[in-house]
Amino acid sequence: MKRIAIVGPGLLGGSLALKLHALGGSEVRLWARRPEAIQEIEARKCADFASTDLREVAGDADLIVLCVPVNAMGGLAREMHGFIRPDTIITDVGSVKASVVNELGRILATRGRFVGSHPMAGNERTGLRAADANLFQGTTCMVTPDDNTDPIATAEVAAFWRRVGCRVVQIAAREHDECVALISHLPHLIAGALIHAVAGKNAHAFQVVGPGFRDTTRVASGPPGMWVDILRENAPAVLASLDAIMTKLAELRGILASPTANAESLRNFLAVAKQTRDQIQFPK
Amino acid sequence: MKRIAIVGPGLLGGSLALKLHALGGSEVRLWARRPEAIQEIEARKCADFASTDLREVAGDADLIVLCVPVNAMGGLAREMHGFIRPDTIITDVGSVKASVVNELGRILATRGRFVGSHPMAGNERTGLRAADANLFQGTTCMVTPDDNTDPIATAEVAAFWRRVGCRVVQIAAREHDECVALISHLPHLIAGALIHAVAGKNAHAFQVVGPGFRDTTRVASGPPGMWVDILRENAPAVLASLDAIMTKLAELRGILASPTANAESLRNFLAVAKQTRDQIQFPK
Repeated sequence: MKRIAIVGPGLLGGSLALKLHALGGSEVRLWARRPEAIQEIEARKCADFASTDLREVAGDADLIVLCVPVNAMGGLAREMHGFIRPDTIITDVGSVKASVVNELGRILATRGRFVGSHPMAGNERTGLRAADANLFQGTTCMVTPDDNTDPIATAEVAAFWRRVGCRVVQIAAREHDECVALISHLPHLIAGALIHAVAGKNAHAFQVVGPGFRDTTRVASGPPGMWVDILRENAPAVLASLDAIMTKLAELRGILASPTANAESLRNFLAVAKQTRDQIQFPK
Repeated sequence: MKRIAIVGPGLLGGSLALKLHALGGSEVRLWARRPEAIQEIEARKCADFASTDLREVAGDADLIVLCVPVNAMGGLAREMHGFIRPDTIITDVGSVKASVVNELGRILATRGRFVGSHPMAGNERTGLRAADANLFQGTTCMVTPDDNTDPIATAEVAAFWRRVGCRVVQIAAREHDECVALISHLPHLIAGALIHAVAGKNAHAFQVVGPGFRDTTRVASGPPGMWVDILRENAPAVLASLDAIMTKLAELRGILASPTANAESLRNFLAVAKQTRDQIQFPK
């Protein structure tokens, strides 16, 4: 990969540019919509070339990485279709995959080789200011080819993510969406609902929170605009996940409300949760 | 405080002993039920004196700190009542307060001066092996005197917790229980329910979890036995908290299930949650 075009200088795009720039061996180009962002990119010295002109940045790239909100990807892909090379590989960092793969696969069917990706990196911070060359180190990146995807492009995209520090898992777009609904989108809703529940019942409680509450709710400090897009794009899977946890909470409620507060059922519920969690191999 | 007796060498008791030993200026005595624990205490060098004989440890103490599960406190208090000095101050580290203050206040009404405490320290680890002299540093300790509590004893207990590194908040036992139900007991149930929901829907998802899921569920790795006691002791407040979050989740479900997935309501829900959380002053 000689020329790599990163489209969008946010937390992910900026971190990717910093890492690639540090690794060397490729020309790093960065596109931003706003002219002020170009100045920030130049000050941060994370790209060899930066511009608001998409054609200048992506026109003869070997790899284009779309690092913009999922609902902005279609428009940019249509624009690119007019000038990219037929063999250019395009990937993205979108948090939902079935809709993105479907839309971008269709737009780029006759030009370029698209492969969906979702690097599970990032935190509650946003923007180039929060960018960090080590953001991807040790994280998991899901790559979601389908029957129409060029297998060589899939292999190149996987190698690209490994190069910036990710562990790569290949998965179908639909299963990806079900998994992230469960492990990312649902936890986000729950963290928000927890904050609302405390605020509604007794806001004094915020004055005595400990590290448990801090960690349990951390994701709720993420950018609302981005999360609205993610949750709406993945609404069917998110709803199914919400139903699953509401069933579990109702079950717990029944256990706790029984006259004897059913110690054995409660112990079993908590012990299975602990055992299951203790077996998870967390990244980093 | 010349002689301090710590009853129970678990994570909290052990950490307290280590800290007091490091601070110096008092004689640190540690009681354990099991003889093997005495050997561990001696190996860890965290007490000036350790024994399985409660009278030897607590008999002439100036301060006794009960660091055992809440349902073991009554029995130990009754035993102590037979031999402690009338002016000995007794406190505890129990995670629920109304029931403990009621029970221990009654048992110790005629001997000793009891003041309830709840240092919000600890993590998902347990036992003397996990003890850490800095465990209390920067954490909040709630002290819960009632109308029967000796105000001098309350001041001494508050000073004791400040000495080991806590920020002290004085609060009524009942309000304490409502607050911890919201910020600690409810998050524990939710973390467990989240693990169960994922396991039930698609256990493959555990293979691609990121730091968000790790943090959101961390508390679920806590000791089930201890949590069964806490949740049952505080069942009424926990049930009210569960109802509050289930109402919020049902509200979110309605927003997401509407044909337009109601972007403005969703954005507002998430933005208020973020804004509220960003204003919390977390410890450490």
